Parts: sequence; C-alpha cells; structure tokens
Amino acid sequence: MTTIGDRADRVPKQDRSRATRQRLLEAAVACLAEHGWTGSTVTVVAERAGVSRGAAQHHFPTREDLFTAAVEYVAEERSTALRALFPQGAADDRRAVISALVDLYTGPLFRAALHLWVAASNEEQLRPQVTELEARVGRETHRIAVELLGADESRPGVRETVQGLLDMARGLGLANLLTDDTGRRARVVAQWARILEGTLG
Amino acid sequence: MTTIGDRADRVPKQDRSRATRQRLLEAAVACLAEHGWTGSTVTVVAERAGVSRGAAQHHFPTREDLFTAAVEYVAEERSTALRALFPQGAADDRRAVISALVDLYTGPLFRAALHLWVAASNEEQLRPQVTELEARVGRETHRIAVELLGADESRPGVRETVQGLLDMARGLGLANLLTDDTGRRARVVAQWARILEGTLG
Repeated sequence: MTTIGDRADRVPKQDRSRATRQRLLEAAVACLAEHGWTGSTVTVVAERAGVSRGAAQHHFPTREDLFTAAVEYVAEERSTALRALFPQGAADDRRAVISALVDLYTGPLFRAALHLWVAASNEEQLRPQVTELEARVGRETHRIAVELLGADESRPGVRETVQGLLDMARGLGLANLLTDDTGRRARVVAQWARILEGTLG
Repeated sequence: MTTIGDRADRVPKQDRSRATRQRLLEAAVACLAEHGWTGSTVTVVAERAGVSRGAAQHHFPTREDLFTAAVEYVAEERSTALRALFPQGAADDRRAVISALVDLYTGPLFRAALHLWVAASNEEQLRPQVTELEARVGRETHRIAVELLGADESRPGVRETVQGLLDMARGLGLANLLTDDTGRRARVVAQWARILEGTLG
C-alpha cells in the first residue's frame, strides 16, 4: 500500500533523476559541438556532467542512445524558445521570423547535430536513430516555420518555398562552421526576406 | 647540356608522376566520402590507389596536404565540368542552371568536403588550410553561378540572391546525407527557379 510518506520520498528522487538526465543531455551536446563524435564518449560526458559512469549508463544504456536523446532534447528546447519569441503565432515582421529561423542553424546545437549527422553517415549503428531524429526535427521545424510565416500551404508552391528557405538556413549554418559568417548572413537574410515577402504575399 | 634524348626520358617520368598524383587525389576523396576523416589515413589512401606509402608521402608530406589537395582537385574538375555543360555562358534555361548548381552539392565530392569541414572544425592543424580552401572554392562557385545565371550584380540585392541560392544548394546537399532526397529536392529546385526567374529578371 502506498502511503503519503512513501510518495513524498519518491517525488524528490524522480526530480533528482530528471535533473541528472538533463545535465547529461546538456553535457553531451556541448561535448559533441566541441570535440566531435570521435572525442565524445559516455565517460567524457559523465565527467563533464559531474555524474558517475554507472549513473550515466542507467539513463542511457548506449552511446548512441545518449547522443540522439541529447540532440533531440536541445532541439525541442529550441523549438519551444522559438515559439515563445512570437507568442501571437504568425508575425507581421517576416524578416524577424526568417532571422530567428536561420539562428536555429547557427551555434552549438547545429554544430552538435552536424557532427552527429556526419558520424551517422559512416556508422551503421548510429544511422537509423539519427535518420529518424532528423526527419522528426525537420517536420517540427517546418510546422513552426509555416505557422510563424503565416504561409498558406494550400497554395501551389508555398510548401516548397518554405522548404527551400529552411534548406538555405541549413546551408547558412554550414557556412558558419569554420568562420564567423554573421555579416554576410545578415545581408542574405535581408534580401531573401524581401523575396519571400513578394512570394508569400 | 640537355639533349633531345634526355628530354624524351624526362617527359614520360613527369607524366607518370602526374598520373600517380591524380590516382592518390581520387582515392583520397573516395576514402573521405566513404569512411570519414577518422578512417582516412595516408596508408589507406595509398593502398586504395595502388601506390607505395613512400611515393604517397613524396607527393604529399602530410595527411592534411593530401586531403585538402584532393578536395581542391575534385572541386576544380567539377567547376570545369559545370562550365562545359553550358558552353555559351549565360543559359536561357535558368532552371537547368540551378539544377546543375545544386547537383554540385550532392554526391561523393560534397560528402568528402563535408567530412573535411567538420573535421577541421575540431582539428587545429587542419583548420587553416580547409578555411582557405572553402573560401577559394566558394568564390569560384559564386563566379560561375553569376555567369551562368546571367545575373547583373550591379543591381541591388542580386549578389545576395545568388549567395542565398548557393547556401540553399549547400543545405540541400546536407539534407541528402542520410537519405535519398532526390524527389523533394527536385520540387524545391523547380519552385525556387520560378521565384528567381521573377527576381533576377
């Protein structure tokens, strides 16, 4: 029989477990962004998170589990943050929306995701999870983009217009990998925002 | 004194040396595309090219020299092939030009270049060469794109339009890394060709 006392004991334990999990996920993304797939092991991540190797393996039995969960967790956090930027949904300022969408593809999360994708292209045990993750994150990003741009996908070509915009954002992220591309990126975003204004109506 | 006999001896030797160099460069790109940076050593490439390790090191003293030279060599070959597709320069069929530009970012060369970029983002001894190489290849691709699209860069926004198109092409290449994205890519290219037709005039 469960008493109130038992429950009170259990809740903080669940909280601690959730906090440990979150610390591991954040450490995994930081590790992947800084050291790449080869330099990112469960041991290195556990150390960075201040968690024992055993506790890390309790949460994530394999290295693949840890890193796909990490990229997914941070992608979800970013989606939530992006929606929070435009609480009214479709925004009047399309350039601001496009700029915020492009920002999803710069910084440590994109860098971590890129390392994971590239590693998955050569490592069979990583490939299925990462392919599935990429598809899921891609669909979610597309949904947010359509909503914030106020794009009417029932009109011919609108779906492909938004897809191409997100492909451009991904390419801009790649262009930022080795050098700081901020200035050029701002000019490209300004021009493509003008083009989209004319296209999406 | 150089006699005609000496010269005749020397030319085939130079030819052999050039052929060896080319075999090494092609093997390096194939290796990088298939196994990634970690799995691509000078020994593996030399074996694949059917060249001794010593001969490989005579041509390319370091692993970094071999791989940056390899990506540059193939990028040049691709630029030449792209110009040859449209021997008249600016083409009437902009969709065909855009489609050919996007094709530069799919296939083994892009995959090899991507592995090299991602490795360079974590490896200090690779970073300067790759950064410089990426800038050079990027400028050359931009030049070809402007020429084949018949884009007038003196008009405001045209430069950024072409840059954004090449960023989109790079992003489409990345989307093709884990899954065959051919169908979606063709629809995005068709739609953006329509949009650019209106924008470039």
